[in-house]
Amino acid sequence: MVYLTRVERFNAAHKLWVKDWSDEQNNEVFGRCANANWHGHNYSLHITVKGTPDPFTGFVMDAKKLSDIVKARIIDKVDHRNLNLDVPFIPSDCQPTSENLVVFFWQELYPHLPPEVDLHRLMLQETDTIYAEYFGE
Amino acid sequence: MVYLTRVERFNAAHKLWVKDWSDEQNNEVFGRCANANWHGHNYSLHITVKGTPDPFTGFVMDAKKLSDIVKARIIDKVDHRNLNLDVPFIPSDCQPTSENLVVFFWQELYPHLPPEVDLHRLMLQETDTIYAEYFGE
Amino acid sequence: MVYLTRVERFNAAHKLWVKDWSDEQNNEVFGRCANANWHGHNYSLHITVKGTPDPFTGFVMDAKKLSDIVKARIIDKVDHRNLNLDVPFIPSDCQPTSENLVVFFWQELYPHLPPEVDLHRLMLQETDTIYAEYFGE
Amino acid sequence: MVYLTRVERFNAAHKLWVKDWSDEQNNEVFGRCANANWHGHNYSLHITVKGTPDPFTGFVMDAKKLSDIVKARIIDKVDHRNLNLDVPFIPSDCQPTSENLVVFFWQELYPHLPPEVDLHRLMLQETDTIYAEYFGE
Amino acid sequence: MVYLTRVERFNAAHKLWVKDWSDEQNNEVFGRCANANWHGHNYSLHITVKGTPDPFTGFVMDAKKLSDIVKARIIDKVDHRNLNLDVPFIPSDCQPTSENLVVFFWQELYPHLPPEVDLHRLMLQETDTIYAEYFGE
Amino acid sequence: MVYLTRVERFNAAHKLWVKDWSDEQNNEVFGRCANANWHGHNYSLHITVKGTPDPFTGFVMDAKKLSDIVKARIIDKVDHRNLNLDVPFIPSDCQPTSENLVVFFWQELYPHLPPEVDLHRLMLQETDTIYAEYFGE
Repeated sequence: MVYLTRVERFNAAHKLWVKDWSDEQNNEVFGRCANANWHGHNYSLHITVKGTPDPFTGFVMDAKKLSDIVKARIIDKVDHRNLNLDVPFIPSDCQPTSENLVVFFWQELYPHLPPEVDLHRLMLQETDTIYAEYFGE
Repeated sequence: MVYLTRVERFNAAHKLWVKDWSDEQNNEVFGRCANANWHGHNYSLHITVKGTPDPFTGFVMDAKKLSDIVKARIIDKVDHRNLNLDVPFIPSDCQPTSENLVVFFWQELYPHLPPEVDLHRLMLQETDTIYAEYFGE
Repeated sequence: MVYLTRVERFNAAHKLWVKDWSDEQNNEVFGRCANANWHGHNYSLHITVKGTPDPFTGFVMDAKKLSDIVKARIIDKVDHRNLNLDVPFIPSDCQPTSENLVVFFWQELYPHLPPEVDLHRLMLQETDTIYAEYFGE
Repeated sequence: MVYLTRVERFNAAHKLWVKDWSDEQNNEVFGRCANANWHGHNYSLHITVKGTPDPFTGFVMDAKKLSDIVKARIIDKVDHRNLNLDVPFIPSDCQPTSENLVVFFWQELYPHLPPEVDLHRLMLQETDTIYAEYFGE
Repeated sequence: MVYLTRVERFNAAHKLWVKDWSDEQNNEVFGRCANANWHGHNYSLHITVKGTPDPFTGFVMDAKKLSDIVKARIIDKVDHRNLNLDVPFIPSDCQPTSENLVVFFWQELYPHLPPEVDLHRLMLQETDTIYAEYFGE
Repeated sequence: MVYLTRVERFNAAHKLWVKDWSDEQNNEVFGRCANANWHGHNYSLHITVKGTPDPFTGFVMDAKKLSDIVKARIIDKVDHRNLNLDVPFIPSDCQPTSENLVVFFWQELYPHLPPEVDLHRLMLQETDTIYAEYFGE
């Protein structure tokens, strides 16, 4: 069992804001992340699959094909987008925190991976000092 | 003459969009950067001053004081902000490209540095693959 | 279950030196790390907690609050300090290796985390080529 | 139980090419990686061992000794080499993909580690966007 | 005058070997870089142009167009290639050192940049510890 | 004229402390950097020489020889040392700030470089957010 990771990047805007809360409550809980006119990040997404290297190709999975699937299912929908407004698979009543994003990304990606690999981990780096990980359970 | 550089970071939203152009023209010129609902970046700003190290302190300038000035004049006004809408010193008819931002940042910072140093360079890194530099001339 | 990591940095001096050993033995075992007048490092500490994202905030835990706790319990006590002499929670007869430090840091941090998260991992990077990890068991 | 990681780097040439396949099939499966005259990478190898810190030295294992063993068994044989042609422990009918390399490296390194540690993980980074991991099972 | 830099990456094989020298002389001068069966690197190329930001777009030059030109003129010809054998613009009697490569790259790129910018600098990073720069004179 | 840079790293302890000042004055000016028992850093030193690539070797200068000279003249004397106490070429009444260090390093290195190159720049990175540069004038 070998683990292969592919890294993809995207740039997006977001804010953290609970609609049912007052401005004061949002600002108290989310601080500068509640800025009404949004802010944004350069995100890095690490996608790790596990499997047995193919005896001919030596690939757990062709990293280029993994990249193509991740781009089609996730990156093309979030890159240069607003994570609160523009992404069909992010519910409008959910905060686009890194913790929630890795779970939504998992749900989008999982059904589209080939049978020879298992999705093992998604890691989403939001800044130099914050990242979130999800292992599907 | 020794050069001292301090690095500060901020996260902001922006888009590239010329108001007098049609949607088609904006999308053709700016591509995904024209997304109506914004996108964003983790920016790194390198501020370089030059001067002679003080014989007592060994400082060209106290890096902590340089950081305080840069935060008061620039970072506090752009961090977790929308560069098109929220920043008083960015004209609303100017695109917030890295090339324009380093010039605006220079104009904000230059008058507030102490007389013992000269501002030498601003470098603004927008992504892993794009950065802009300005030397004041 | 989602894992959230916050990264904090500190700069400290230390040396590796067993008091009951001769100079020769210390130099043989620890090499340049036994330099009598100390040396030092820029350390990066990765603090990983796990939990369920809050349905309102989308946070496993507010990363700012996690940072505040880590700073109060660890970083303020080790940053710009001597790890052999200045830190109350590092026993004077224990070497301040990265392996020992992550265990001491765990003991300091563990009791002060809020009940909604579990401390999952501490990772301490000492140089570009050496890091230690502890999972609490 | 504490985990200690040492990072070593090497630069090598390789290509991906199945001898029993036609040129067309190789180019279709491996793309630019099948270039007849090779290409190459700067590789980073992360070697993680686990054990209990020694009560005197504070070491799970002396990182310098770990480095010496990894260099003697792996790095000296792959650095500035051709991974398809020059390395005795890489079978000529196996592709030198990162997934296969971490398994071959594990087999070379495992028997030579001291009894006080267990080899936990090998991670081989091939580019900024691709890495493979192996845990020995 | 603002400077804009775009970073492009490529992976290539090469060796350092003077045909008119004996094996001994080559090995003495070039060490492991003379390995007969090649070795390789992940290269990063920083391309810096200078000019005045356009009053409408805020661009010194569209970074995407700069990337397209660099890819067409340089990256497509060196990526996943052998720098000694496969690249038409690298003379077979010249060593593919980083110092020589930045000059050859300059000659290839210079005539194809648009008139509104000047090529200011090429920087080629070969490893974490070696890079070369050329300013065209 | 091509510029070649070699990067070397060292780990050292230091403090900032003017002997003729009171404790209060030192603490006010230097803050945590005045900690009596020292602190430390992982330093990166970038050494840039300029010259014409040799027509046979393609080298401005053999990077390995440059590394050997820098190690003999600088790194061996500062690595795992105390910059205030252990280094003959750092005057005891000078603060070991990065600004002063690059000048002292220049003076040590300059006379020992071969005639075919000029020393162009020393850059010393002290932390992720602070670095100093010196060009010899």
